[in-house]
Amino acid sequence: MDIAYDGTQFAGWARQPEMRTVQQVLEGALATVLREPIGLTVAGRTDSGVHATGQVAHADVPLATAGMTADELARRLRRLLPDDVTVYQARVVPSAFDARFGALRRHYDYRIADRPSAVSPLRRWDTLAWHRPLDDDRMARAATALLGEHDFAAYCRRREGATTVRELQRLHWRREADGVLVCRVSADAFCHNMVRSLVGALVAVGDGRRPLDWPAAVLATRQRSSEVTVAPANGLTLVGVDYPPDDELAARAALTRAVRTAPDRHRER
Amino acid sequence: MDIAYDGTQFAGWARQPEMRTVQQVLEGALATVLREPIGLTVAGRTDSGVHATGQVAHADVPLATAGMTADELARRLRRLLPDDVTVYQARVVPSAFDARFGALRRHYDYRIADRPSAVSPLRRWDTLAWHRPLDDDRMARAATALLGEHDFAAYCRRREGATTVRELQRLHWRREADGVLVCRVSADAFCHNMVRSLVGALVAVGDGRRPLDWPAAVLATRQRSSEVTVAPANGLTLVGVDYPPDDELAARAALTRAVRTAPDRHRER
Repeated sequence: MDIAYDGTQFAGWARQPEMRTVQQVLEGALATVLREPIGLTVAGRTDSGVHATGQVAHADVPLATAGMTADELARRLRRLLPDDVTVYQARVVPSAFDARFGALRRHYDYRIADRPSAVSPLRRWDTLAWHRPLDDDRMARAATALLGEHDFAAYCRRREGATTVRELQRLHWRREADGVLVCRVSADAFCHNMVRSLVGALVAVGDGRRPLDWPAAVLATRQRSSEVTVAPANGLTLVGVDYPPDDELAARAALTRAVRTAPDRHRER
Repeated sequence: MDIAYDGTQFAGWARQPEMRTVQQVLEGALATVLREPIGLTVAGRTDSGVHATGQVAHADVPLATAGMTADELARRLRRLLPDDVTVYQARVVPSAFDARFGALRRHYDYRIADRPSAVSPLRRWDTLAWHRPLDDDRMARAATALLGEHDFAAYCRRREGATTVRELQRLHWRREADGVLVCRVSADAFCHNMVRSLVGALVAVGDGRRPLDWPAAVLATRQRSSEVTVAPANGLTLVGVDYPPDDELAARAALTRAVRTAPDRHRER
């Protein structure tokens, strides 16, 4: 299922007792349509307040038993879901498909309005308003040293036993026609708080508080630093997830099972 | 002043007793900053629920007395204003400038998501979700007969003594990368409900309920028709207003005073 949500009123993706989460709302709608409990596996377990336009989740669903196509399932879910979450489409995938462990790359956008004329009230839900102008050229130059495979422990909220080695494949700043700065970040997977920590460090360079080489120096410490500010959740949107073609899924799934011994390797926030 | 707002929580631009309107909130902030009541004149008196990214208003403001530049005034206003309205910038204009009577053209966008994959929860505030796919080519062809100067009485909510002759300069449908259909409409001025009535009529053509020549036939009746559905306010945004260059303002203002004898000629909704 391709899923989108406005994260403003959600306590993130993952189910938590007493909280309104995307997983809880979607699984609730699935259970209503299919009359049995259905568990979702998701590509990106987004944090509280983070949005998605390109989230992907899979489930084992008894479509044949229910006498329903995937299209019909998506239509029924859309009718049940609240305004802040939707299922763009659903399709039947090979059994080897795994939304989480099969994902090749995740793509996030972080939106910042760093000048008064870019702070559109209509986009306040998914755009950080920043009080000082940012030098996007400086931020782009500072980012180059972060690309590639590194231990991103300095930019991760640490979890017991989880690896923090990730391949940062892209970190690109662009300024849109309306003046909003958008940071597109892509990696094989992200550890917890990684995108928001990277953006927080680069913003400190962009507004002149830190020198150009500071983000790389922080990276080299491999220690979570209290000097890195985690950028607010509202600017962040999961915009897409890449998967291998269907005919390569089975071979890759076997490979992933072998790699999975590195605990929580693909944990994604 | 260049002004933007999310119209969702406003009962439109114009002051009304007991209602939260953009004019009331902005004039309130102006009075706080300048310590005297200030009246705003606006280019587009948008209806309840209609948004703006390019609204323009002017006021006679004692900047010199207050010891304040226009930039400083805009900064102070932004600090006072709620999240759903902002002043992008303020500047000192020639005394002949009139935000309402001096405007040459108004530009509106109407956004429609006519397929499930285009209904982004993050854009639900300024985009109409439409339940059937629209044929934008049919809508574009139906619109051509509406262009030019006509009596748009059939597409206006009538007001006593107000002319309904307008010059529709542009009505252009485009489909954005995310699948959203955007109708850009430009005219010298619009009568009340005109954009939303035009869009409502074209949508009826776009989803096949009405023939291609129906909007032109409605126009020719010059009678407000109950068959034309006024499209919902939430899809509509005032995106810009054109003015003559500063050095032509005085000459044009004299001309406008002469034209103004046609009552309410420039009334704009």
